[in-house]
Amino acid sequence: MIYFDNAATTEMCEPALSALVEVSKTQYGNASTLYGYGRKAKELLEEARGIIAQCIGADADEIFFTSGGTESDNWVINQARHSVDRIIVSDIEHHAILHPVARVKEEGMDVIFLPVDEGCNVIQDSLQSKLEGKKVLVSVMFQNNETGVIQDISSLADTVHKYSPESFFHTDAVQAIGHRRINVHELGVDMLSASAHKFNGPKGIGFLYIRRDCQLLPLILGGGQEKGLRSGTENIAGIYSMAKALEDNIALLEENENHIKFLEEIFLCELSRSDISYKINGDVNKKAIGIINIAIEGADGEGLLNMLDMHDICVSMGSACNSKSKEQSHVLLAMGLDEDRINSSIRISIGRYNKEEEIIELVKWIKKYYELSNIARA
Amino acid sequence: MIYFDNAATTEMCEPALSALVEVSKTQYGNASTLYGYGRKAKELLEEARGIIAQCIGADADEIFFTSGGTESDNWVINQARHSVDRIIVSDIEHHAILHPVARVKEEGMDVIFLPVDEGCNVIQDSLQSKLEGKKVLVSVMFQNNETGVIQDISSLADTVHKYSPESFFHTDAVQAIGHRRINVHELGVDMLSASAHKFNGPKGIGFLYIRRDCQLLPLILGGGQEKGLRSGTENIAGIYSMAKALEDNIALLEENENHIKFLEEIFLCELSRSDISYKINGDVNKKAIGIINIAIEGADGEGLLNMLDMHDICVSMGSACNSKSKEQSHVLLAMGLDEDRINSSIRISIGRYNKEEEIIELVKWIKKYYELSNIARA
Repeated sequence: MIYFDNAATTEMCEPALSALVEVSKTQYGNASTLYGYGRKAKELLEEARGIIAQCIGADADEIFFTSGGTESDNWVINQARHSVDRIIVSDIEHHAILHPVARVKEEGMDVIFLPVDEGCNVIQDSLQSKLEGKKVLVSVMFQNNETGVIQDISSLADTVHKYSPESFFHTDAVQAIGHRRINVHELGVDMLSASAHKFNGPKGIGFLYIRRDCQLLPLILGGGQEKGLRSGTENIAGIYSMAKALEDNIALLEENENHIKFLEEIFLCELSRSDISYKINGDVNKKAIGIINIAIEGADGEGLLNMLDMHDICVSMGSACNSKSKEQSHVLLAMGLDEDRINSSIRISIGRYNKEEEIIELVKWIKKYYELSNIARA
Repeated sequence: MIYFDNAATTEMCEPALSALVEVSKTQYGNASTLYGYGRKAKELLEEARGIIAQCIGADADEIFFTSGGTESDNWVINQARHSVDRIIVSDIEHHAILHPVARVKEEGMDVIFLPVDEGCNVIQDSLQSKLEGKKVLVSVMFQNNETGVIQDISSLADTVHKYSPESFFHTDAVQAIGHRRINVHELGVDMLSASAHKFNGPKGIGFLYIRRDCQLLPLILGGGQEKGLRSGTENIAGIYSMAKALEDNIALLEENENHIKFLEEIFLCELSRSDISYKINGDVNKKAIGIINIAIEGADGEGLLNMLDMHDICVSMGSACNSKSKEQSHVLLAMGLDEDRINSSIRISIGRYNKEEEIIELVKWIKKYYELSNIARA
């Protein structure tokens, strides 16, 4: 099996897997209990919180554990109902932002969408005028999951805080955390969502960074865990494993980046050498390495995906989350790409465990498909 | 370490641990993707759903995966805002019910609390009159987490459906699932919450049973997983591990029950033989085996807990979730127990892995504490 869908989910790294197994086996204590065995679980919890905080330049008490990026995003949007007059999000957010936004809009919230250009860059021009005199939650994704395009988050956050000091800036950084150096203070964000399984950690666990002075009501209430902000028995094994995954990915960041960059270059080079006509979707100067949303001339994206699948190569047609629906990508549509280009596109996302020979194999089958479909068309 | 806090959380059973490790290692595919490797994850997901459904007499399409019992409870209560005129809950619900209820009450929901008697039995007398002419969500816990007392859920559900056919009945069965035979159709419940780590599964995963004709809006929106009712990349390893834990516990149900019953009898017998004065909190004829909320005459519950902890014996003072707060148990207060009795109480919860010699050790230290505190008082 050749796996090129690392933007959908990733293979667990060894430190994360070992931590998951070891903690699940030996440290099943409830971290909210008073006795020693429970306190040991609590220690692991706080150690994990410290590791994660350090990896993103936050303080430990600003990290709150959730069941993943989707919950983190929902938390931010839902609870904004109680604290802001307006929500501003970009057109290319993940559905974990867009769908809760649609719901609070139905309930009467004033919602404004920021458009993107053809390169998937959020157009900031009119942001200032939408902020003045309002208390706003602005949420813009750090790195788009379909195109890999990275937004200028610190500029957006600056604008928000400059023109509306009472407002909040949140970023869904699910695709970026563990894959690039991120310092929440340098970025100037108030809140940031992340999900472990996108950086070689386990599924079902994530976190929300909440800047210390920032107020957010809980989404999930109960036993009062996470200082009352996220109740539910702490998933220590998942949390500790997530911390180990992030720590490992940050330690190997440059190495992984170089490796993935090398593979991406080989991929594009081999495509060109094979005389395959293609276009990259999204601004190539702004996109993260590793995510390649590519329109293959004349291809039917779904047909290509299926053909690759027959040869045990995993790629996607955009977000895994909406892969089952026949709807076209809302991201590519927002970029103004035409139907033909969208339908001829697939997403290849390269991870730290991919190898050069896998890239060669991928290109080999894309080439076969390309030749067959061009013969069929002729 | 001797662990008598199985109502707080449990050690993972071997089939659950193996499943967690194996799936985490080899089946990291995203279940929402189109290719074969993702479909394999989807198969595991649906196999797990089938196993769980069968264990509780439901159909597979009535099982929805969540991050645990707290999320399941919050989901039910929060979304009732959109569908009912009134919420009725008992005074002895878990905070995962009571706190969301308090929030929707603040937002204007009509909320009524059902009292309990001294034995922790919910008083049903006035329920009928509170249902007529209203669309109500009634939520009553199956088995109380502090006393183990089991409510007559089928009678409550019958009353609800008889006097208000439009109303819904939910039960938080977090303490009961995996520990007794439960058939949702025989019970007549519309919704039921469960959490894997209470039945020797992993933390951070649970489910909500929703009867097929029952409408519930999602709490967490996004990629549309779980038929649009619970978004977020599916935690396949956690889900599959949970299914294996439940399957294993149900297969060994009678064996485990007999073992735990035997240990409970020895415990009480040894206490009496040691001339320790005690009272069981909660109706002994209605309580589940394995949970013993016990007032030791003259004891200070916290002092006793700390002394047992010094000898590596884990017991609790009620719910782990509020163990850090100095507030007295809302359950024991609702039962009308006096302050002295509450303060002299601890909860011992026996699980399938406990052994006879651990009971003997526990009683030995309770006896020492009892003698010392009686000497101190004298």
